[in-house]
Parts: sequence; structure tokens; C-alpha cells
Amino acid sequence: MPVTAPVFDAEGLIRTTIAAIRDPDQASRDAARTLQSCLTKPAGALGRLEELHAFAAGVLREPAPALDRKVIVVAAADHGVAADGVSAYPRDVTAQMLQNFLVGGAAVNVLAAHATAEVRIVDAGVLRDTEESPSSSTGRRPGGGVITEKLRPGTDNMTLGPAMPRSEAETLIARGIALARDECGRGARAIGLGDMGIGNTTAAAAITAVLTGTPPRTTAGRGTGIDDPAFAGKIAAIERALAVNEPDALDPIDVAAKVGGCEIAFLAGVAIGAAASGAIVVLDGYPTTAAALIAAALAPACVEYMLASHLSAEPGHRIALEHLGLAPVLDLGLRLGEGTGAALAMTILDAALRLPREMATFDAAGVSRSASERRPEP
Amino acid sequence: MPVTAPVFDAEGLIRTTIAAIRDPDQASRDAARTLQSCLTKPAGALGRLEELHAFAAGVLREPAPALDRKVIVVAAADHGVAADGVSAYPRDVTAQMLQNFLVGGAAVNVLAAHATAEVRIVDAGVLRDTEESPSSSTGRRPGGGVITEKLRPGTDNMTLGPAMPRSEAETLIARGIALARDECGRGARAIGLGDMGIGNTTAAAAITAVLTGTPPRTTAGRGTGIDDPAFAGKIAAIERALAVNEPDALDPIDVAAKVGGCEIAFLAGVAIGAAASGAIVVLDGYPTTAAALIAAALAPACVEYMLASHLSAEPGHRIALEHLGLAPVLDLGLRLGEGTGAALAMTILDAALRLPREMATFDAAGVSRSASERRPEP
Repeated sequence: MPVTAPVFDAEGLIRTTIAAIRDPDQASRDAARTLQSCLTKPAGALGRLEELHAFAAGVLREPAPALDRKVIVVAAADHGVAADGVSAYPRDVTAQMLQNFLVGGAAVNVLAAHATAEVRIVDAGVLRDTEESPSSSTGRRPGGGVITEKLRPGTDNMTLGPAMPRSEAETLIARGIALARDECGRGARAIGLGDMGIGNTTAAAAITAVLTGTPPRTTAGRGTGIDDPAFAGKIAAIERALAVNEPDALDPIDVAAKVGGCEIAFLAGVAIGAAASGAIVVLDGYPTTAAALIAAALAPACVEYMLASHLSAEPGHRIALEHLGLAPVLDLGLRLGEGTGAALAMTILDAALRLPREMATFDAAGVSRSASERRPEP
Repeated sequence: MPVTAPVFDAEGLIRTTIAAIRDPDQASRDAARTLQSCLTKPAGALGRLEELHAFAAGVLREPAPALDRKVIVVAAADHGVAADGVSAYPRDVTAQMLQNFLVGGAAVNVLAAHATAEVRIVDAGVLRDTEESPSSSTGRRPGGGVITEKLRPGTDNMTLGPAMPRSEAETLIARGIALARDECGRGARAIGLGDMGIGNTTAAAAITAVLTGTPPRTTAGRGTGIDDPAFAGKIAAIERALAVNEPDALDPIDVAAKVGGCEIAFLAGVAIGAAASGAIVVLDGYPTTAAALIAAALAPACVEYMLASHLSAEPGHRIALEHLGLAPVLDLGLRLGEGTGAALAMTILDAALRLPREMATFDAAGVSRSASERRPEP
């Protein structure tokens, strides 16, 4: 029984949004590189920071952009497969953590504040409804109210059949697009993806297995920290889900519906919508990168808008990032999700973008260039 | 001809400071770990951020410390060996960049501001004197005045004899100690090391070769970006310097004097002084890590206070960090120096320290723990 009925043409919105994704602006990227060569530092000496600047210049279509507004969309949902014991935590934790996001007590709230990013909390399919209680009495930063995009109270158990009907996966993707379009319309220039859902690294591992053609025993990891028997059970659950559902690797919506998750489908839509709006899409850990795999399969052009924030401790994350051709900015052994790595990478991205806006040029500072810089080769 | 005469007992200050370095506080480190286990996240899910928190708790001797005040000490000096063409830049650039630091136009000024760290600019031996002109008319953040700790206008050419007399290396170390003690006395809880000196990766490679027992062809890199012939010349210069001076690997002050640099000796003192004052010492790239090698050889206990901010693109940096047993927080291909990597790592360290101070606990947030967390093993 849908909690909210679809009120728009999901398939049409997905199609028109994908068509609206442009290539990043090469002229702005070139201008960024020219600007870098004028700053008081040896050529290339700021390494990845210079690459981040050029990337952002292309996406944001200006040579020295600033991230005036940054948003992290944390989508939460439950997973029917959690009934098979694939997580160290009880399923109730998804709803409890959603509540924790709302009162500002979770890691992503703290790291988003550190990055001066706003947090948007989305109930994309949490089993238990959440009380709207921003609890300002605790003195914590309220995370804002919950945005309800719940078609169903979590997925069905994918080891027994499809996680959700295709139409609902499509609607969730379209809803994600709409949210991203709205946030970008209100000035967001970078959108971080965050996830919460007990059982969702199992869905991420299933999606990654299908879309990268890698066996589940390689794409699965220990998630929140399961022991050996539970880990073996997790791999077996994914193998069963793939055998029962036979998801079609050439049809990403089929994959999202059969072995995905509500929050993962929603975040795939956020990625597509942000790319179409010309914003940077900052991935987080494994579930958000699984969402990126779906987005990239639907709209290959959106990969040019993606930034891989960090390399998770989940082994399958590396496989998913390599498939997308993305190199992570950070490698801190994080395995929390929520958008925590995205928030941290935003602080690095902001630093990279401040440099060309605030550093002096060789000429202005009266600093001599190196011999090769003084005599550029033709 | 010394510009400022030594006015204190350098050898005595070094000795008493080394003796004052305590072990980090294990009780605070343990309390940090206990606090982490109460926060709303799976055990260990914040990876390196949890390690940074425990490290800082031990150094700062409280379970949930904050970096109320952070300082980056950028020490600049010239190198006689630059006459041998070991750098892509003319020697004048050291003084020009010192001036750039003072008006806030360099990369470290921007990244320190991003990290809310203060910058202290030290002339530890720049060839040309710097005009004190904070140039507020440019609208840039003034970097504060220059702190003059200049015994000599740069080192002598180490390929012909000692870079400086032993007594001057000792005095520079003692001056660095005094500066760090003073900054910590005024509330600094983390001190980043920054360097500027055309030719100083040559000195860093020489120091690293001696103190780690690694040949110069392995410890030398391309610094600011030299071509193949200049790179071969750089290696030959280091080999010549080692043959001419025969620095004693068991006598770190001898190494600092014969093949070091004025800024490197000064920064070794800063590291020792900060450790004795109970502050975190944040290393930057290769020259600052060479300073850390000298500090660690003089005072092994100070390594416990060091944080490796990043892995430089200079190949010898990895050798120096491995010798110290330190793992870098970031790997962004930086090779600029100035304290830029230290500043970036401070933003990550601040994030790591905000988490335990601002996150909710399982009990306060009403979030269920995992089975293993509910039933801790004895």
C-alpha cells in the first residue's frame, strides 16, 4: 500500500532530465588551468587540489567557482533482506538513526556543519514512521524536518522476489531528481549523497555485482561489522537474490527494483537531477556509489559531474569506483555512510576552490617564475 | 657574520626541553576510546578519524579535546647548494615568497585561513632581507610581521663544506624551541610545520639519506619540477655533500649543520618545543619531515606528538615517514611545502575532534546497539 501516490510522470521526468545533462564546460576548465599557472606556486604543485579545481570549473561553468551552497541529501530506507541477518544491527536502527539525524546527533550532522553544508533528511522507505520532533531543547543543531518520499515501508526481501515493483523504483528515481532540481534551483552547487538503511550494503553489493559483472563474494563486505558466519550468510543471500530475480544488467531500473533499495533508487535520481542542474555530485561510501552505478547506467554523462569523496573500508566500494573511473579524494577507512565522507571531501573541495580565488599571482606578488614557466614551449 | 648574536644557552635549552617531553596520557587515550564506543555509529566505523581523536586525546591529555588555537610556523631560508642548479627556481624566490606570505597571497595563507589556523612567518636565514610591508591595501589577510631568527643569510654550499657551523645549527634549534614554547604558552594546541627555501628538498634528501641509511639516488626527487639533467645534478650534489662532510648519523646536530638548512634546524626545534609543551606537531612535506627526523633523533619521545599530514609527491618523503613510523592522513600529490598539507590535515583533525564532542550517544539518542556491543566480551 503506497504511503504517497505517484502524482507525476516518473518515466517522462527521468527521460527529459537525462536529456538535459550537458557536457561540462571545457572552456572554463581550460581557463581554470591557465589561472593555476599564474598563481605563486610551481606548476602542478597543488596536485589533486588543482584537479579538483579544474573539475569544478568545468561542472560549474566558470573558471574560479565557489560553492555558495552545499547540501547533503541523506536518504534512509529499510531492507527486507535484513530479516536474513545480514547486519550486526537490528532493523529498528534505521528509524532510530533517522530521528538522530533530525535532532543533529549523528556523525553526518557534525561533519556537514564542519563543511558548512546543509543536511536534507529523506524518509525514502523507513519501516517505522518517524516522529517529527526537532528537539531544540537539546541544544543540538536541528537537521531540519524529514522529507517524506515513502512509497513503501522498506523493500521486500530480495532473496524471495523483487525488492520492489519496477514502477516504484522509477518513481523513487524521479522523486530524487525532483529534490535535486529543487535544491539546485535554490542555489546548491554541490550535492552530497548520504545513505542510511540497515541491510543496505547487501543491496549495494548485489547492484555492484550485476552492474560490474563481479561475483557477490567479491562485492560483499562486512558492513557495520558482522562476524564470519553472518558474512557467509550475506554472500549467500546476494547469490540467492540474483538467482531468484535474474536482474537485467542492461536495464538499470530493473536492477534497482529487483535487488536495490528505496534510498538507493532515490539517490540515483538525486545524482541525475544534480548533474542535469549543473551541480557537483559528491559520492559517499558503498550504497551511494551503488546509486551512482545505477545513475551512470541510465545516464553515462552524469559521471562527469561525480566526485568520489573517499574509499570506504568495504572492499566492493573500490570495484564500483573503478567501474565509474573515479579516484577517491580521501582514504580514511570510513565505513559509516550517512554522507560522512562526502562532507569531509567537501571541506577539501572548498579548500581547492579558495586557492585560485585568494592566492596571489606571480606578477602581482613580484615572484619570479621558473625557467620553463618563463619560456613556455610552443 | 651573524645577523643576531646568540643570547642564550642553546645546548642547555635543547637538553632541558628534551627532558621535559612526557609520554602521551594513556588514560585520556583510553577514555577517548570508551567515549567513541558510546557514540551513535558502529564500532570503528569512523576509521582514521577515531585514531586521530585517540591520538589527540593522549597528546592533549583530555578525552575530548578541541584545538582552540592552531598555528602554522612557516620558516624560510636560503641554501648555498642552490648555486649548483638543484632547483627550477632562482634563489630570489625564497625572499619573494617570504614577502608573499606576509601579505597573505601564498597557498599556505589561504589553506591556513580555511583551517582557522594562524600563520607565523620566520626568516630563519633568507639571503635578502625582507621589507616589512603588510600591504593592507591589497585587501588580503595580513600574515603578521616577520619573525627574524636569522643567524646567517642562508647556508653555505654543502658540496664544498659544512652548510653551517655546529654552534649555529644548535642555536637555530634552540630558537625553534623557544618559539614553540611561546606559542604553546599562548594556547596553541597544534603546531604545523611549514618550510620555504629554494634548494631545500636537496637538504631534505641529504638529511634523509644520512638518518635513514638510504642512498641519495633514492631519497632525492624533482622538487619544484626539475628536468632530467638537473635531477642527475641534484643527486650528484647530495653525494658530493655527504662525501665532503661525512655527517655522523649518530649525531643529529652534526647532520643538521653539515647538510641541513637553517629553516630545517629551526623547525626541528619547533617540533621538540611543541612536544615538550604537550601540543600536536603536524608535519607537512619533505623538508619538514627531514626536520622531524632530526628532532626524533635528538628526542625519540617527540614522535608520539607528531601527525603526518600528507604524503608528498617527493619519493623520499615516504622513506622519511616510514622511518618515523608515521602514516599520512592525506595523499593528494602535493609538493608545495609552506605548511599547505599541514593546514589541510588540520581541517580533518578538527573534524575528528568535533565528532566526540558533538555526536549523540546511543543512550541519549535511543539508538539500539549491535549484538556484540550489547554483550561486551570480558
